Formats: sequence, structure tokens, C-alpha cells
Amino acid sequence: MEIMETDALIKRTVGHNVNMPSTRQTSYQSMNGPEGSLQTSTSENSTEIIKTFPRSHSSDDEMIDITGTGTTTESNLSRSQGERFLFTNPQYYRPSDVFTYISPSDRECIERDRLTAGSEMDDLSPGIGQYDDFHTIDWQRDIARDRMRHRYIVKKRTESICDLIRGTHDAWSGWLCVLLVGVAAGAVAGVIDIGTQWMKDLKDGVCPQAFWLNREQCCWSSNDTLYEDYYCAQWYTWPELLGYFRKDAWSFIISYILYVLWSLIFAGLAVLLVRTFAPYACGSGIPEIKTILSGFIIRGYLGKWTLVIKSVGMILAVASGLSLGKEGPLVHVACCIGNIFSYLFPKYGKNEAKKREILSAASAAGVSVAFGAPIGGVLFSLEEVSYYFPLKTLWRSFFCALVAAFILRSINPFGNDHLVMFYVEYTRNWLFVELVPFIILGILGGLVGTIFIKGNIRWCSYRKQSQLGKYPITEVLVIACITAIISFPNTYTRMNTSDLIKLLFSQCGVADVSLLCDYNRNFTNVNSRIEIAEAGPGVHKSLGLLTLALIFKLCITIFTFGIKVPTGLFIPSLVMGAIMGRMVGIGMEQLAYHYPHLWVFQGACSTGENCLSPGLYAMVGAAACLGGVTRMTVSLVVIMFELTGSVKYIVPLMAAVMASKWVGDAFGRRGIYDAHINLNGYPFLDSKEEYTYTALATDIMTPRRNEGPLCVITQDSMTVDSIENVLKSTDHNGFPVVVSQESQYLVGFVLRKDLTLALGNAKKTQEGVVGESYVLFTSHLPQPVSGPTAVKLRKILDMAPITITDQTPVETVIDMFCKLGLRQVLVIHNGRLLGIITKKDVLRHIKQLGNEDPESVLFN
Amino acid sequence: MEIMETDALIKRTVGHNVNMPSTRQTSYQSMNGPEGSLQTSTSENSTEIIKTFPRSHSSDDEMIDITGTGTTTESNLSRSQGERFLFTNPQYYRPSDVFTYISPSDRECIERDRLTAGSEMDDLSPGIGQYDDFHTIDWQRDIARDRMRHRYIVKKRTESICDLIRGTHDAWSGWLCVLLVGVAAGAVAGVIDIGTQWMKDLKDGVCPQAFWLNREQCCWSSNDTLYEDYYCAQWYTWPELLGYFRKDAWSFIISYILYVLWSLIFAGLAVLLVRTFAPYACGSGIPEIKTILSGFIIRGYLGKWTLVIKSVGMILAVASGLSLGKEGPLVHVACCIGNIFSYLFPKYGKNEAKKREILSAASAAGVSVAFGAPIGGVLFSLEEVSYYFPLKTLWRSFFCALVAAFILRSINPFGNDHLVMFYVEYTRNWLFVELVPFIILGILGGLVGTIFIKGNIRWCSYRKQSQLGKYPITEVLVIACITAIISFPNTYTRMNTSDLIKLLFSQCGVADVSLLCDYNRNFTNVNSRIEIAEAGPGVHKSLGLLTLALIFKLCITIFTFGIKVPTGLFIPSLVMGAIMGRMVGIGMEQLAYHYPHLWVFQGACSTGENCLSPGLYAMVGAAACLGGVTRMTVSLVVIMFELTGSVKYIVPLMAAVMASKWVGDAFGRRGIYDAHINLNGYPFLDSKEEYTYTALATDIMTPRRNEGPLCVITQDSMTVDSIENVLKSTDHNGFPVVVSQESQYLVGFVLRKDLTLALGNAKKTQEGVVGESYVLFTSHLPQPVSGPTAVKLRKILDMAPITITDQTPVETVIDMFCKLGLRQVLVIHNGRLLGIITKKDVLRHIKQLGNEDPESVLFN
Repeated sequence: MEIMETDALIKRTVGHNVNMPSTRQTSYQSMNGPEGSLQTSTSENSTEIIKTFPRSHSSDDEMIDITGTGTTTESNLSRSQGERFLFTNPQYYRPSDVFTYISPSDRECIERDRLTAGSEMDDLSPGIGQYDDFHTIDWQRDIARDRMRHRYIVKKRTESICDLIRGTHDAWSGWLCVLLVGVAAGAVAGVIDIGTQWMKDLKDGVCPQAFWLNREQCCWSSNDTLYEDYYCAQWYTWPELLGYFRKDAWSFIISYILYVLWSLIFAGLAVLLVRTFAPYACGSGIPEIKTILSGFIIRGYLGKWTLVIKSVGMILAVASGLSLGKEGPLVHVACCIGNIFSYLFPKYGKNEAKKREILSAASAAGVSVAFGAPIGGVLFSLEEVSYYFPLKTLWRSFFCALVAAFILRSINPFGNDHLVMFYVEYTRNWLFVELVPFIILGILGGLVGTIFIKGNIRWCSYRKQSQLGKYPITEVLVIACITAIISFPNTYTRMNTSDLIKLLFSQCGVADVSLLCDYNRNFTNVNSRIEIAEAGPGVHKSLGLLTLALIFKLCITIFTFGIKVPTGLFIPSLVMGAIMGRMVGIGMEQLAYHYPHLWVFQGACSTGENCLSPGLYAMVGAAACLGGVTRMTVSLVVIMFELTGSVKYIVPLMAAVMASKWVGDAFGRRGIYDAHINLNGYPFLDSKEEYTYTALATDIMTPRRNEGPLCVITQDSMTVDSIENVLKSTDHNGFPVVVSQESQYLVGFVLRKDLTLALGNAKKTQEGVVGESYVLFTSHLPQPVSGPTAVKLRKILDMAPITITDQTPVETVIDMFCKLGLRQVLVIHNGRLLGIITKKDVLRHIKQLGNEDPESVLFN
Repeated sequence: MEIMETDALIKRTVGHNVNMPSTRQTSYQSMNGPEGSLQTSTSENSTEIIKTFPRSHSSDDEMIDITGTGTTTESNLSRSQGERFLFTNPQYYRPSDVFTYISPSDRECIERDRLTAGSEMDDLSPGIGQYDDFHTIDWQRDIARDRMRHRYIVKKRTESICDLIRGTHDAWSGWLCVLLVGVAAGAVAGVIDIGTQWMKDLKDGVCPQAFWLNREQCCWSSNDTLYEDYYCAQWYTWPELLGYFRKDAWSFIISYILYVLWSLIFAGLAVLLVRTFAPYACGSGIPEIKTILSGFIIRGYLGKWTLVIKSVGMILAVASGLSLGKEGPLVHVACCIGNIFSYLFPKYGKNEAKKREILSAASAAGVSVAFGAPIGGVLFSLEEVSYYFPLKTLWRSFFCALVAAFILRSINPFGNDHLVMFYVEYTRNWLFVELVPFIILGILGGLVGTIFIKGNIRWCSYRKQSQLGKYPITEVLVIACITAIISFPNTYTRMNTSDLIKLLFSQCGVADVSLLCDYNRNFTNVNSRIEIAEAGPGVHKSLGLLTLALIFKLCITIFTFGIKVPTGLFIPSLVMGAIMGRMVGIGMEQLAYHYPHLWVFQGACSTGENCLSPGLYAMVGAAACLGGVTRMTVSLVVIMFELTGSVKYIVPLMAAVMASKWVGDAFGRRGIYDAHINLNGYPFLDSKEEYTYTALATDIMTPRRNEGPLCVITQDSMTVDSIENVLKSTDHNGFPVVVSQESQYLVGFVLRKDLTLALGNAKKTQEGVVGESYVLFTSHLPQPVSGPTAVKLRKILDMAPITITDQTPVETVIDMFCKLGLRQVLVIHNGRLLGIITKKDVLRHIKQLGNEDPESVLFN
């Protein structure tokens, strides 16, 4: 399905109507022809295809010609496999080949041999080298494939101008791809921002003159400068639209009912869209993206439909007033864009390991547009999301994030010439004594984060186990209804969460008449300095309302995160922290007002000037709370300081975020994303975790010590029938090949998929192959040829499987799995094959150590 | 020598006069006693030592008690080795041990067995597990050692309050260590900054009232507001001090002579200090730190003397007016601090792999204080310096960089409340059309960088090969003399380079009367807007002088970088770029003045306001040039934007830096640091490089195919004499152990050092061991015991060496070396041992591919 989507996409994007079935047929024919029919080199073959089916992209890379059919992939693979078993043929063991000095001409000669040796592998069946859904990818193999492909292109580059262009395009395609991803991510984010801005005000009223304007834009044309929370003639609330212009209880009730109604409609629409078109579009997506980036295949998770539905659903869900944000889902959307664009470049689209480089960059772009923080985005990708993050990816991520931010800024969705909704600039420096409340905020943030994670995970696992999980639509509607009903009476919960954060972060201006800024001040003129003042009744009322809002937000977000609409939790976390921070900030401010001469204020408050800004506390609190929930550190600090545009507050932010992380880690090491990965049983091997139990490879390998022997294939003594029996009786994904049943010395490793395909192919195309034919993985025949024709399968044998000894500590094994991106390792003892360890074995072992159910790992 | 330094340091820092020799004796006695004398568990033993020698740090970690002698290290090692061969004893192969379900009590029991099994290894000789100078470290082994140590402490934590404190200290020691490193780095940087500020003005004159003030500070007390380049009554130039107050040719000549004289004195002093006390204190240090962080031992490179001499030498070298900066050396100084402090925490000081985590953080702190850019510092460490950079190191680096920046800011060496000398704030936004000159600047920067790298490398390799290298002091003096003579007549080269950068970055103020700001402006009052104006004669003269300065700086820096004083090249690169940028900027400004209505200026210039600031061009040019020289990208952009304190200019900076990198890479992929690593033959395995030649493990392994068999040790058929013969006749650092000479199946790997020590120890302490004694690496005796007592050496055998098959592509081998931090891999074919590949083999192979001399790799 994913591939078909891609076909369609490529067709549309390229803009040519390609006769796809015919392409496919042609390539299939050439692939399935009798052995030797494709003995011409790959390059000639592909050039021919280019001539037959001219397409704009064809000139760039021959592999796109037969894209979508999977046929190029295995010709690629076979080349890389060719690379591996090149030297198994004795004729290659010649003196010139040993590593002393090899003259350039010799080297070229060897090179050519190796390349053509690869091309003779093109008669393999299609499908080899592709991954099934919910399988783990083999990074080593994919990287080797790409290296081979790259080498081939570099070699060919000198041959003709066309090849040179192709080679140059190949070299730049990574940058080009992230450029496109950045542009698209910025554009989509701009559209989503504008859509959200408009729709969130729809619950309140409409702009009858121009319905497509939100309240702020609608009031721009008015002469009132103070539109916020106040009457603006151009904007009609629903009671007003219904002709009821009085401000009394009835007006309130009509507003209330319509507010709830709109909430229900938006939420219902969002969940229906998700349920109907793209079930993967729910949630924040970050746990799944982490898993995918760690090398797991979830087909359709980053598809076209997910992109569209998630974007639309996000707007609806945010507009419905549910306690959720659009920042997390934006990362998912950006990754969808990355995935879709990667199919334009077969280098990435056809190679799962390479594709993850693009996805890493895309996730950086996602955060970049979500917060207007390109550097924060890169660090978020590095710290939180990505698994492998080589330097090249760092540069491309940065480029991608920057382009996305630039595009979003050009769209200027907030009309404030900044990327973010809550851009603030604090004028004053912080005092040393303020570190104390900042660290207290950090501790509070860590506690709130812990409560949230524990509560949310308990609720989600209850949902999974109980009947509740069967009624997702009802659940969403109930939560939307409760949220709307409780939110409306409280000003601070009724307003959009982003607006609330903006309000809490802001400093009180001179002429500010909002509740939060109701201080007993005497202003002589508007240019006077803002002096520190006593809190008025409005501030006290605000504090009460904010306390209620905090409790409500914490409770409702626990139940909201995980429902079947796009839900991000950056914004809810930030708002909780911002409320806490603002309250602490007002407390500190009043302390400084009443005791301005305390030595801890370093004399800064005794001049009567406002020496503390509660808005800064709100920002620090927000960072602390988000840190407690996600356990981000560096990236979070960078995001927050990119929000404020000043490096002045790094120390306070860092202190709070570190305190929050330490407090959070004391109660449980997993952040919300890791907790969800664990809850859903995704096969994510966390390289950060530390394991305190000692085990050796021999303890976790298959077969266990009290089980039967390992299922192996011998190199030259098994028949087609016996191998097919082995295939039928087991469900392993691959089999070690050994010398013989008696002396189990490891020869290589063969994948089930390759073996099935190759055997089927041999039976179909090779004459004389019957059930009794021997299957040979050697390059020579074992005995004088007798009986039916033997099937030679050395070409599908991986001659370089990764092996370890049985005495290797499990930590080293985990390290190898993480760093080398393996699918399995073979365990040997004194040269003899003892067993096999797959990623699943490792994950089950880890689960068992944590006293969890090892069978909960989702895996094939 | 390094260890002795540390002893002294610990003694001084802890503040107790510890009876070191007696401690050492005690531990030696217990180590060398007859077998079984130390069968009590390690914990009891260490507690006893604590009781005997109470020290403030003793309660934190038992290993510091016997610090400096190396004895703890091998007890540590033996524990980790114990971990590896624990299961080799058949008694451990009991049913409860297989991995099904193990009850917690069982698990504890097994755990205890494993720990005590480790403690019986404490009778090994000292020195095992330490590295020799110029050797590569084995990350896997060091990490395993640390894991074992950690596990042991975690286990003990529950036993007593004291152990709990010790465990908590251990858990926090990483943070504590980076905190101390940050504080020290900030303090040292502050002292260096102040010292440099003072000394650089000494060439010009002195403040007679208070000689410790530099010119700027001296003139503060004056009433003149315009001290810069102008007369200030408090400051006496040298002619004035000599009683010559007239401003004529003689005054100029006296100044000239004294300028050159001071330069020579400073430079001579610097080179003498370096030559006499710390030869490693020369150069920038970054290539060596990269090599050290990649896992290489260079004793004394990060020692106390290097720290002191580099700090002092840096001040002198900068003050002498040589074309060099102090930013690169500051990274070296910070790493020295990191190294010294790591010895306070044996977790880091005694474990080379762990120590590198601290060093990574320290290098971040170094850049943080050099540029006042904590985030830039972390990214620099990540992008340019570090080899392994796990997330934990990221957080700690950030913390360390932040603390260092905070301390430096509290010291406030520049008196401008900012961390950096060239803090600038641009008020105006950039226009889209300006991207064109920015990209041109990027291209120019890439070209200048390439010229610089090629020229410098050619000169340095000439110095290495010729007689020139034998006269380092003469070389420094000659270059200092030439620099001073040419610099003095040109205002822009006479002034300190940092001041020049500051000047070039700055915007022209209203009342600015310097040459660079000599525009034909008519000001009505000082509050008026700065309007765009025609360049006056001063600007034209400046342009001429700047051109000369650029050419001079480029030429002299090529010869300066690499002389035997501390030399950084951040500042010279920045100044070259800044000159280019300022010139381009002035050109653009005049273009906008003369053609303000061009559509590309988007109407911004037609209002008469100053729409382009040449200072911004200088900044972009500086970034481009530094990017061309070092090939940094993200970290450079972040550093530059932390300098300006604004995120507004990320896009221009990024465009220029990317262009510069691409242009530079087109002429040669290596940045200046990598080029110097290559020139000096440091064994640095660059994981970033791509290799296009295909080879298999079998091609690069030892023995080559036409050589004799591999030198191996059999597990039970060799005598002490025969092994000693093998040790004498070869110089390998380790030997594979196989089943027998006939069936070479791999059993394990033993290090030469361990083997020598263990054999010597056995002969000394074990009775009946003679030359004919069999050496057994098995757990059982092969035949009925006859002949002299056998030596059992299974405990020094590494049972889990990393193996690969002979068909593994070399890229995969390099990948494994880089990612797993290996010292060697063993090559097997069908279970049989074929050969061995060391890091040296890989490096020689790479050198050979580049048509370079493979013997140039510095390695043991």
C-alpha cells in the first residue's frame, strides 16, 4: 500500500504519465528470464530502460525507472552481496590481490571484476532485500548496499557527461531532499498555524464581514487598540449573531452551549477522520517515530494519508479546546513529509537505513517550525528522537530546520514577524537569589512530570486492557464534553492554551488592564518606568483562577494524551509549568515589594524599580514542567532561549531543567515517550539505559541450554526437500549455514526470505531441479556429481555475519546491537556455532530484568 | 610522571598529608601474598584500608586509598575479567542459571558468586590494565571495567550508610567533576583574558600611575571619552616615558623599535618557556586532543605543566603581536584542567575511556569561555573534537560549558557585561538580496581556507623534513621580528587582532571619527538616525590598508601556525574573513547609496536610512573564513550567533558557512585539524571519511596471504619456555589463543603485557614452576598430571574477543573499529583462526589508499 501511494506520488510530482505496468513487466521479464539472459552489465540494461521510458527523473538515477516494483532493490542488494562473497571463488585468490602494493590499473581491473561479479546476481527473484511490516532493518546490510551503489556511480561518473550529471545529482540529492522537506514542512506548518488561529475563535464567534478572519485579524480593521478580551465592533459572538446583544446570564448560557457544541463537533470530526482514513494519525507520534528511527518498519505510519489526516485532525483537535498541542504532531507531520519526499530519491526511498537520515532531518524541521527554534529542533532530533546521528545528518538536519523556519517566517502566520506565538523579550537581568525559586520550580516541574507520566501510563494501560479501548469515539466525545464544560467558566481555561501561555509569559505593560496586571500603580505618564507595586484584587482573583486551571489541566491532560486524535503534550506541559511559574513569580514579586531591602536582592529592588518579572518565572516554570514530562535537557533549554531570543536566561533555565530532570529521574527514569514505547511494546533498544544484572551471551541465546539444538542448514549435504521441511517446521527469519551437522563450524547466514525465493525460482527456471537435488552453499561440488542437478545458492549466502563468543557480556552484545544496528548475532564457542541472538532475544531479556512480561514486545 | 603529578595534586587538594609509601606497601603486600591470602571479599579489605588511613576522600570511594600505584586498577580489571570467564568453570553451569525465570533471591546468589569470583583475581601483578604511552585504548574493556565497578557499588549501597554515601558520591561524581572543571576553566580563562588585555598594551606604553592597568582601564579615570586611538593623559607611550613628548618621526621610530623589541622579548620568552618546561604546550592542541579523544594515550599532553606553560605562553604569544589567537589553546587548557580534575575521581582518572567523557565536556567548556558561547562550545565538542558523544556526555558538556561561561562572566574580564570581546548588536534586519554577497563571501572564505590549509601544510611538512625544525627558537624570533616590522606601520595590523575584529564588526556610530567611519554625513544632532552616506577619503584609505592587512595576515599566518608557541587560528581566520567582509560590505553600502532605487533593495534603501551595515558583512565573512579553515558548520553558526546575541542572522551565516564548506571540500576534504593529524601521523580513524575502494578483511589482515602463519598460543600444549620464546621473537601486543596448532579454533585472546606479568609472577610465587611447566588456558588438565606444576592462566584470557569472518568488507571493519572502539579484531574462516587486524593495519590500509606512506602512522 505504501509503495502504491508512492507510485502515485511520484507520478504526480514528476508530472509525467508513466506507463507503470509496462515498466514493471519489462523489468520483471528481464529479472525472471533464464540464467545468463542478463549477463550484460547493469548499466547497459538501465540505459536501455531509460531510452524506452523517458522521464524527467530518469536521467538522474537509473533506479527510479523501475521504482515501486522492488526490482531495483534486489539488484542493488545482489551487488552488495556480490561484494561480500567476491573472494570466495578461488580464481580471485591471485597474488596481485593481496595487500601489498596494487597499481592503479590493477586496482581498476579488480574493481571491474567485482562490479561485474555483482551484476551476474541480477537473476535473483524480486523482493529480496525488502522488509516486511513490523520487522527490524539490518543497518549493516543497507549501508553496504548504499556503499556499493555509491561506488558504482562514482566509478561510472568518468564515463560520460550523462553519468557525470547523474553522479553529481546523486551527490547532491541528500541536500536537495532536505531542502524540499524543509520547504514543505515550513509551508504545511504555516497552513496549520493559520487554520488553527482561525478555527479556535470559531467557538466564540465569527467575523461576519470576512468569515475567514480570526478575531485578532477581524479587530485589526477596528479602531480599538485593546481588542483582547474586550469588545470589538467587527467581531460578533454567537449570541450577537443570533441577535442577542445584551450581556446577561442568557448571553452567557448561549455562549456556553455553543462553546460546548462546537467543541464536540470539532473533536468528533477529528476522531472520525482519524478512525476512517488514517488510524496511525492519532497520538503525538513521537514514540513511534523514535521506534522507526531505531530501525523498525511500520508501513503507512509515515504515509500520505497520515500526513493529510494528521494535519487536518490537528487543527480540529486544537480548535476543539481539548487539552493538547500541535507541536508533537507537527514532528510526525514533518516526518511524513520527509518519508514522502525520500521516494523522489531512490538513494533514500529504496534504502531504509538511508531514509532514516532524511527522517532525522525532518524531525528537526518539525520542532523547528513548531517552536520557531531551528537549533533547538536539531538538538531535539539529536537528544530525543534520533538513534543514529552521524555528522552528515547533523549538518543536513540543521539545513532542513533552517529552511523550514525561514519558510514559516516568510509566511508569518502570527503576524508578529517572529516564528513563535509566545515571543517575549525581557529587559531586565536576573538576580542571583532568584536561582532558589527557579530550582524550586524545577523540582515542582519534576514532580508534576512524574505525576503526569504515572497517571497517564496507568490510564493508558487501563484503556488497553479494558473495554474502554473499543469505544474511541465515545471516549473522545466524553473528554471533549467534560473539557468544554469545565473550561468555559474559567477565563484562563476558556482561552486557547497558546494564548494563555503567551499571556503568562508576558510582562505587565504600563497600560495593561488585564486581571493579571491589576497592581496598585499610579502612573503619571505612559513613558514612566514600571515600578514594583502591590498586587491588586485582580491579581488575587487571577491566582485563584490559575490554581483551578492548573489542577484541571493536570487532571484532564492525563486522560487526554492517548485518545484517538492527534495529541501533543508540549503545550499542555508548558501551560502547567507556566501557571506554576507565574504564581511563584508573583509571590517573589510581592516579597520584593514588601521587603525590598533584603540583602539577597542586592539592592536591585530598593530603587522602586520592578526588579523581578513574573513572566520570566512562567517561562522557567514552563521549561521545568516540560523537562519533567519529556526529560529533555539541552534541546529544551535551547528551544526556550530561542523563544525569548536572548542568551541571558540560559543559567536559570538550565538550573530549573536540570533540577526537574534529576527529580523526575529519581521517581522513574523513563520520560513520557519512552514510557509509551514500553507500554506499547515497541521494539526499541535504548542505548541510554543501564543494566545492572550480569549475564553472558550464552544465557540469552537461542537455543537455551536445556532446549534442543539450533536449527541450522549445512553447506552441502541438504536437499531441496529437507530445506523446505526446515522452512516449514520453523518460523525463524534466517538460518546459520554450517560445514556439516557433525562439525558445526559457521560458514555464513541465509535469510528465510531469500532462501524461499531462491528455491522457488530455481525450481521454476532451472531444469532438472527436483526435491532430491542437493542445495550447495559451497563454490565446489562435494562429491563426483551424481543424482539430479544441484542448486547453487552461494550467492544468497551472507558470508560476513557478525559473530561473538559465548562468553561475551550481554552489555557488549547490546552495545553491538545499538551501535552497529544488527538484526542478529551468531554465538560461537571455540569456532563452533552454539546459537543465535536476535534483537527480540535482547529485548525480552531486558523486559524480564524489569519484571515485565517479555511477551509484550511487538515484534516479528 | 603523570601519576606522580596526580599524587601531588591529590595530596594538595585533599589537604591531608598521606603516608603514601606505606599505603602502597600495604596494598602491594596483600596483592603479592600467596594465593588465597586475599580470599576475603574486596569490600572488607578496602574498609580495613580506610580505617588505617583515614582521609576525607576515603569515605567516598575505596579506590582512592591506594591511588597512584596502579594496584586498584588491576583489581578492577580482574573483576571485569572475572565477569567474562565466570561461566567457564563447569560448576556455574547449573540449571538455575539458564535464562528462564530466576527468582530475585537466586539472582542475588548468582550475583554474589560472580562478585566473589572476581575478587579471587586480586592476586594478579600490578600494572595489568594500564596503557603504555602512544598506545590505543580498548574502549570495550574499559567500559566493561567501569560497568563492573558500578555494579559492585550499586550492590554494596544497601549494606551500610557509609556505602550508601559512597554510592551516592559515585553517582554524582561525574556532575561534580564537570562542575569543578567548569569553574576552573572559567577562572583560568578570566585570568588569561585579563593578562592578555594588560600585556598587549605594554608594547605601546604603560600606565605610570598604576602599571597593572591596560590602556583602556588607565584612560577610564581620564575625562576623555574618546580614548581609542587618541591621546589620553594618563597613558604614557614609550617615547613619552623616555621624556620625548613631541609627535614627530623620532617618536615614531622610538615607538617602532620598542614595539619590535617587546615583540621579540615576549615571543622569545614564550618559546623558551615551552621548550624548557612543556614541549607539548606548543601549537593549538586541537589535533592532538581529537586524537586523544579517539582513544590514544599521549602521556603528559594534558598534564599540569602543559596547563601552566600553555596559559602563560598564550598570554605572551598573543601579546607579542604574532598572528595567532588564544581560542584554540584555551580548549587545550580546558582539557588539561579536565584531565587533572579527573584524577580526583578514580572512576574517571583510572579509566581512560571514562576520562574521555570528562575531556569532551572540558573541550566544550574551553570553547564556551573562548567565545562566550556555551551552546556553541557543546556543538564544537560534538562536531569537531569528540569521538564518542553519548547523551550523558552531551548533558554534562552543556553543564560544564555553562558553568565555565557563568564564572567567566562573573569575572567580567572585558568590563562590558558580556562574555566576549567583540559583542555587537545590529539593529537592522537583512534584505533578501544580501544573500548574494553573503554567498560570495562564503565562496571567498572557502578559497582562503583552502589556500591557508595547503600553504600551511606544505610549510609544516617542509619544516619537518628540513633542518628548519631543529631551530624552533630562531624560527619563532624571526617570525616575530618580521611580524612586528611589517605590522607596525599599518594601523590595522599594529592593533591587537581581537580589537581589529571588534572594530570591523562594529557599526559606525553617529559621532564616530575613526577612519573606517569617515562618511560624508551631515549631522544635525547626535540623536538623529544614521543615514546612508557616501564614503569619505578615510574609508578609501581604510580599504587600502585593509587590503594590505589581509594579504599580510594570510601570508604570515601560514608561517605562524605550527611554530613552537601556543598558536590558535580562530582569531587569525576570523580577522581575515572580517576584513574581506567589511570590504564587501562597504562596496554593497556604496552600491545602495548610489542606486537606492534598485528593485532588489525592496525599497528599504530609498528612504535614506542606512539599510546595510558593513559590520554584519564582516561577521558573515569571518564565519565563512573560519568555516573554510576548520570546516565547522553548525557549531560555527551557533558560536557566531551567540556572539551577536541574536537569532536574526542565522540564515545569512548558514548560507555563507555552507558555501564555504562546499567550496573548501571541493579542493580537499580535510580541515586544518584533520590535515595536521594526517601530517603528524596520529592514529586517528576518521569515521566521517568515505572510502571508495573495495577490500575484504582477508586483504588487510596479518599475516598477509604470502606470509607465514599467524603467531598463536595454544590453550594447553605450550610450556613456559616456548611461550617466552614467542614473547621474545615477536613484538605483538597480544596473541590469540587456539585449541591446538593443528586445529586452530579460537579460544580467546591474551595481551602481551598480561602474559609477561602473569608468567613472571607465577615463576616468582608459585612453587615448582620451571621452564618445562605447561601453561594452561583451559579450566581442566589435558592429560593425567605428569611433569612439573602447570601454570593456570585462564584468568588473564579474554574469552570474548571480537571476531569477524574473512569475507567482511573493510568498511564494516572500520565501522566496528570506530563505533565499538576496538584495538584489534580476529579474523576467522569457518571457525578457524586466519589472522588478526589491528587499528594500525586499518590505518595503514587507509594511508595506502591515499597513496601516502603507510609507515608514517605514529603507533606502537
